[in-house]
Amino acid sequence: MSQQERAARTQNALVRSAAELFERRGYEKASLNEISSGAGVSRGALHFHFDTKAEVADAVEAAAVRALRHAVESLPTQDGSALQGLMDLSHCLAGLLVRDAVVRAGFLLSCEAGERACIDLCQEWQTHVHGFVARAANEGSLAPEVSQEGLVNAVVAATVGLAVLSRSDKGWLTGRALTGFWKVLLQAVADPRTSAGLQPDGTRREGDDDRGRH
Amino acid sequence: MSQQERAARTQNALVRSAAELFERRGYEKASLNEISSGAGVSRGALHFHFDTKAEVADAVEAAAVRALRHAVESLPTQDGSALQGLMDLSHCLAGLLVRDAVVRAGFLLSCEAGERACIDLCQEWQTHVHGFVARAANEGSLAPEVSQEGLVNAVVAATVGLAVLSRSDKGWLTGRALTGFWKVLLQAVADPRTSAGLQPDGTRREGDDDRGRH
Repeated sequence: MSQQERAARTQNALVRSAAELFERRGYEKASLNEISSGAGVSRGALHFHFDTKAEVADAVEAAAVRALRHAVESLPTQDGSALQGLMDLSHCLAGLLVRDAVVRAGFLLSCEAGERACIDLCQEWQTHVHGFVARAANEGSLAPEVSQEGLVNAVVAATVGLAVLSRSDKGWLTGRALTGFWKVLLQAVADPRTSAGLQPDGTRREGDDDRGRH
Repeated sequence: MSQQERAARTQNALVRSAAELFERRGYEKASLNEISSGAGVSRGALHFHFDTKAEVADAVEAAAVRALRHAVESLPTQDGSALQGLMDLSHCLAGLLVRDAVVRAGFLLSCEAGERACIDLCQEWQTHVHGFVARAANEGSLAPEVSQEGLVNAVVAATVGLAVLSRSDKGWLTGRALTGFWKVLLQAVADPRTSAGLQPDGTRREGDDDRGRH
């Protein structure tokens, strides 16, 4: 393993250790000592990568932003219906929030950011939602009276709310809650000519778990 | 002023001081000394009311719950359409979040509650939303295919999301964002026979500010 690979691996371990600590004990209570020992590296190794806890938090949020971008790029419905793509992406984000401590911590840091907030995961999410809604409008798959801004706001607010509520009750991030949200919303926003083929529980792919089916 | 009135006044001042501190510096960083000095009372006077910071936080959340209950009881549309009542209440909650540091802090504490969480403002909000949606269904003012559970989840998730997003951008709590959300949602959930008379920007009363009109 090259020195560069070792450094990248250490940085990843530090980001993951910090994310788990931020989630368990909160950003304020987590110490640099706990972050480095959680990653199994020395305090000196931590300082090779980060000077302050705020820098570690920025790295956690940046890693969460990368995970979200990767999810967008990996969508199976890139060229299909934009409304379906948006629903698929929301299920994908919910799955990331359930499975990946870095994405969860990134979202919480983004919501709580008072003094920090150079990187903004919520803003990034909003930009993606906006892109899908604009595409859906261009495709003519929105009902004519739907306000694009209202739809973007409703989707962003609801998904951020689901992420926050899931901290005390994981049930909010099951496919069922999200599918229920989309079922309600689709009746309002999808043009009747295009809504028949849409799957509010996400496009099912080979090997998927059964999200949203229960 | 009786001793009892003085005690109640001191307790209110402590709750307000704590709410402002929790909001500005976060629950973890706020100290009991700062809370008492912010309220203009001695540390001994604080300890007459509260033993720990967690008890102060519970008092903040309880005060926010009372403010929410008072808002529900003061709704002008108690006997009118339940959907209109729910929209009015959501505008009322947004107004409380904008104006009242105790309600803001109560919501944040409720969302962040890991170890505390005896009182749950989010749960209280959900119960009110559920009550209005059940009444709307009984009145026959929901479109027949609407899932009550899906609608409750959508409204709770979106309002919690708006409250969280407003921490970094107050724009999320203006009447306009909320009105946009309701306009989108009403197209899906309101029975066409009843939707014509509904006001997604809230029932306007004499002396109201112009929320949602811009």
